[in-house]
Amino acid sequence: MNKASQLRKLFAQKDLTVIVGAHNGLTAKLVEKAGFDGVWASGLEVSASYGIPDASLISMYQFVEAARSMNEVVDIPVVVDCDTGYGNAMNVMYMVKRYEEAGMAGVVIEEKKFPKDNSLLEGGRQELLRVEEFEGKIEAAKAAQKNPDFMVIARVEALIAGWGQEEAQMRAHRYAEAGVDAILIHSKSKNPDEIVEFVNSWELDVPLVLVPTNYPSLTEKDMKALGKIKMAIYANHGMRAAIRAVEELFARIRIDGGIHNIENFLVPVSHIFELQGVPKMKVYEKKFLR
Amino acid sequence: MNKASQLRKLFAQKDLTVIVGAHNGLTAKLVEKAGFDGVWASGLEVSASYGIPDASLISMYQFVEAARSMNEVVDIPVVVDCDTGYGNAMNVMYMVKRYEEAGMAGVVIEEKKFPKDNSLLEGGRQELLRVEEFEGKIEAAKAAQKNPDFMVIARVEALIAGWGQEEAQMRAHRYAEAGVDAILIHSKSKNPDEIVEFVNSWELDVPLVLVPTNYPSLTEKDMKALGKIKMAIYANHGMRAAIRAVEELFARIRIDGGIHNIENFLVPVSHIFELQGVPKMKVYEKKFLR
Amino acid sequence: MNKASQLRKLFAQKDLTVIVGAHNGLTAKLVEKAGFDGVWASGLEVSASYGIPDASLISMYQFVEAARSMNEVVDIPVVVDCDTGYGNAMNVMYMVKRYEEAGMAGVVIEEKKFPKDNSLLEGGRQELLRVEEFEGKIEAAKAAQKNPDFMVIARVEALIAGWGQEEAQMRAHRYAEAGVDAILIHSKSKNPDEIVEFVNSWELDVPLVLVPTNYPSLTEKDMKALGKIKMAIYANHGMRAAIRAVEELFARIRIDGGIHNIENFLVPVSHIFELQGVPKMKVYEKKFLR
Amino acid sequence: MNKASQLRKLFAQKDLTVIVGAHNGLTAKLVEKAGFDGVWASGLEVSASYGIPDASLISMYQFVEAARSMNEVVDIPVVVDCDTGYGNAMNVMYMVKRYEEAGMAGVVIEEKKFPKDNSLLEGGRQELLRVEEFEGKIEAAKAAQKNPDFMVIARVEALIAGWGQEEAQMRAHRYAEAGVDAILIHSKSKNPDEIVEFVNSWELDVPLVLVPTNYPSLTEKDMKALGKIKMAIYANHGMRAAIRAVEELFARIRIDGGIHNIENFLVPVSHIFELQGVPKMKVYEKKFLR
Repeated sequence: MNKASQLRKLFAQKDLTVIVGAHNGLTAKLVEKAGFDGVWASGLEVSASYGIPDASLISMYQFVEAARSMNEVVDIPVVVDCDTGYGNAMNVMYMVKRYEEAGMAGVVIEEKKFPKDNSLLEGGRQELLRVEEFEGKIEAAKAAQKNPDFMVIARVEALIAGWGQEEAQMRAHRYAEAGVDAILIHSKSKNPDEIVEFVNSWELDVPLVLVPTNYPSLTEKDMKALGKIKMAIYANHGMRAAIRAVEELFARIRIDGGIHNIENFLVPVSHIFELQGVPKMKVYEKKFLR
Repeated sequence: MNKASQLRKLFAQKDLTVIVGAHNGLTAKLVEKAGFDGVWASGLEVSASYGIPDASLISMYQFVEAARSMNEVVDIPVVVDCDTGYGNAMNVMYMVKRYEEAGMAGVVIEEKKFPKDNSLLEGGRQELLRVEEFEGKIEAAKAAQKNPDFMVIARVEALIAGWGQEEAQMRAHRYAEAGVDAILIHSKSKNPDEIVEFVNSWELDVPLVLVPTNYPSLTEKDMKALGKIKMAIYANHGMRAAIRAVEELFARIRIDGGIHNIENFLVPVSHIFELQGVPKMKVYEKKFLR
Repeated sequence: MNKASQLRKLFAQKDLTVIVGAHNGLTAKLVEKAGFDGVWASGLEVSASYGIPDASLISMYQFVEAARSMNEVVDIPVVVDCDTGYGNAMNVMYMVKRYEEAGMAGVVIEEKKFPKDNSLLEGGRQELLRVEEFEGKIEAAKAAQKNPDFMVIARVEALIAGWGQEEAQMRAHRYAEAGVDAILIHSKSKNPDEIVEFVNSWELDVPLVLVPTNYPSLTEKDMKALGKIKMAIYANHGMRAAIRAVEELFARIRIDGGIHNIENFLVPVSHIFELQGVPKMKVYEKKFLR
Repeated sequence: MNKASQLRKLFAQKDLTVIVGAHNGLTAKLVEKAGFDGVWASGLEVSASYGIPDASLISMYQFVEAARSMNEVVDIPVVVDCDTGYGNAMNVMYMVKRYEEAGMAGVVIEEKKFPKDNSLLEGGRQELLRVEEFEGKIEAAKAAQKNPDFMVIARVEALIAGWGQEEAQMRAHRYAEAGVDAILIHSKSKNPDEIVEFVNSWELDVPLVLVPTNYPSLTEKDMKALGKIKMAIYANHGMRAAIRAVEELFARIRIDGGIHNIENFLVPVSHIFELQGVPKMKVYEKKFLR
């Protein structure tokens, strides 16, 4: 079964699909190994992996390659954070073509202007497109896809931009009518009230997607209880834990003047080999190397 | 000053230059921020970042791009793990051209046959080239470089392959005479005796480089005391700490059914923004966005 | 229908499938527009497009990207020249995975040693693998493919290497038994006798593929009359015509001191726009740009 | 001498520097071999080489890689067509960093809105930025460059957009004051009058650059006579000649049912080998392969 159909099946069969942020093949494998339902090819993580701001600087080509690297080594579906769609509706059509050919399950596009700024950035530029323009982008995306199961998810940024519940509901409705397969409603409020209010007011059949980075107190149980929410994205926690661990490790090595005292921080090298699939390769070597 | 000259200066001025493994811009920045002297663009880390075995499967193009991504966001020099040189002496010449144009400080090539297997892999294929063939590759590398400061380091795998001290010394001498700028003598012995024996027998002026992954008890102080060793490479510890942290985090999220209880594992999102250079970008935005 | 199935259908329904060399999306489109059955993603053309020798210097990654660029803009199948498979049987497995995921119809791998030299090069290194080793590579390729229609074609270089008809027949038989879907029998003889002799001696059901670059007098009609030959590859003629035209044009501009006298050499700029698909994009712009 | 300094020297020493469009290493080599002064990494040619419209669809990453491929195989300077700079002033800063690190001599950015449309396209979207916004992009570009010789050239599209001579002069003056190293004044008029009028009115010391695609009657001699014009770009003629030749060749092969009658259209395969640098590689093989 292709990945798009897998994702559709998850939406159909599970109360809540949980996908987790990654930025390369290795981190995608860690998501899969932990038992999550899918991988979130996070724009923040991928741009951060380059050490470059999440501001439409890294090229779509690089985001496609990162998503492809993830998808090639996991069996679970990959959903891609496509920011603004990298330009106008024509860019969106080309983007859908490229991500679909790369085997992705779905894409998320947001209603911000290109070039974007990260949604959680204090004082970031959070400028929204006219509704009509984003509707055109959604229709273009849906027209470009070939596999009907491929999911196009619209990310509503009206709450992030401070435009209020009414605007957010209006925009979400318009995008739902334009044909998106789900609405990602984003909030940077430190408690879940804003999101809960939005969810409780949502009356369409189009499912909702949440990214609870800023309101972590909302658990999976809570989301299921609210209904309507079909997917949660833990967007960047793996990278944040990795950075913390590496900073602590490096500080320790610097203090110690060596690596003689860090065993407890590490997995063994053989664990990396396993994550790389070396044992499987060794079976093939026996069979095919002559 | 270009990066190759920076690395030469480190070799000239420091007792021991310490470089640390990375696989992308972000991890290179963490190496720099921790105060290490340089970045080791690790073949194991880069192939592992793809979730693919370290066995000459990932293309040189991808290794170049990974090294370039690291180099572009740090001010310290990057030394690149170039495995076997990706083929014969012609591949080595092309490789040196590409890495030098990408701004690298130096490269390490090893005397194994292409396609290689990871040196620390139990039961891995550790087949060595004829000495003459590797001498040809070294001479080709030195002939291909344009900046005289660019360093070509030969990685002697004779101890890894179990060919003994005498063979290792002979090979290291031959490569030194062929013109390499340093000898990386590799060992997978669990204690430093094998390496110490090699170092104590080494009589040429060509400096030595160690990778103490398997014999971590050898501290920087020990290496300085031995003399002759001018560089230590902590090859993959950052990645091993990151994997451990991410696995623990993901297990916790799975158990908890949410992200409400993991704050202590994480750096804040704003810390990622800083590593991406967002504050600097915001200064430029004020200046140039009109 | 996927491209692999398209190619199978061509083999099943046509006496002779004719595919033509290209090196990027544009040249692939020219092949399609001219009415040929498929595109040959030529290793010589792609390496030449970089201005780099056809000697395993350009990375597999770059060949995959070139093939992908071709495939994305044509509806006819693309068959890829994969040289030696970029290493051993493990490299071949990874290669098949990557080309299949990129949507290719099939691949050709040759029995030469890595790194290879171009087959038509006077005085080139034409060293062949042991038969057993190449059998292992073929079996690995067939084990790696997911779509049963994906074609793995073995390129027999024994005639090129000067090892004679008997060796060529023996090798072709062994590879056929190892499971390849077709045998590309290569020759650099200036007349077709060598190839005709091979074809007439061929008794298995596995179809043959010819590349008549050096013996152009053998027409499609001739090939059909010989039977057993199911595909002809015109490997690099487009590029050779393009180089000739560009050299003449540039010489003319240099002599004239301007572009006032070259209209007859050129298609209009609007012709490029059409090949880029601009008219189609303009239709979409009307529909989706708001 | 680096390529930026080479280009500066050409501007200082020659009446008219002539650079010619290319899209990959091979076509760049043909430009060099013909004796032109430099290579124009044409946005139209590169996007066309993918078979994709010249409308900000192909990623900056791909344009950088194309420019790098050109630069790596020629000794003459490469000037890059960077369209709008791929976004706002922040994108421009990142772009300058990446192209400068890739060894380019200079870049051209145009005052159109992102995503752009090709300037010569009938009915294309030719929307210009506010002058202030483009001034900010120019200042950002100049602030981002490290080598003072690196050239940033502003492409004035006011005549293309139909905004008249006065607006074009005003904009060109403002950009000159913002610090650009040259003004590319673009016109799609079928005769040179419009351009000649602009040139004759130009009174600043900042040199002018022309792209006479649409008004080919203006010869190099004419441009020198006008003064002030320091560079001419023959932007896409090589590709237009190549397409014509390939289309004729393919039609002939289709009609003939074979390649027995096309020798006159082609350079020999050995000519490709020479352009790839095979003879030089063979010298190195003798020296270094053992």
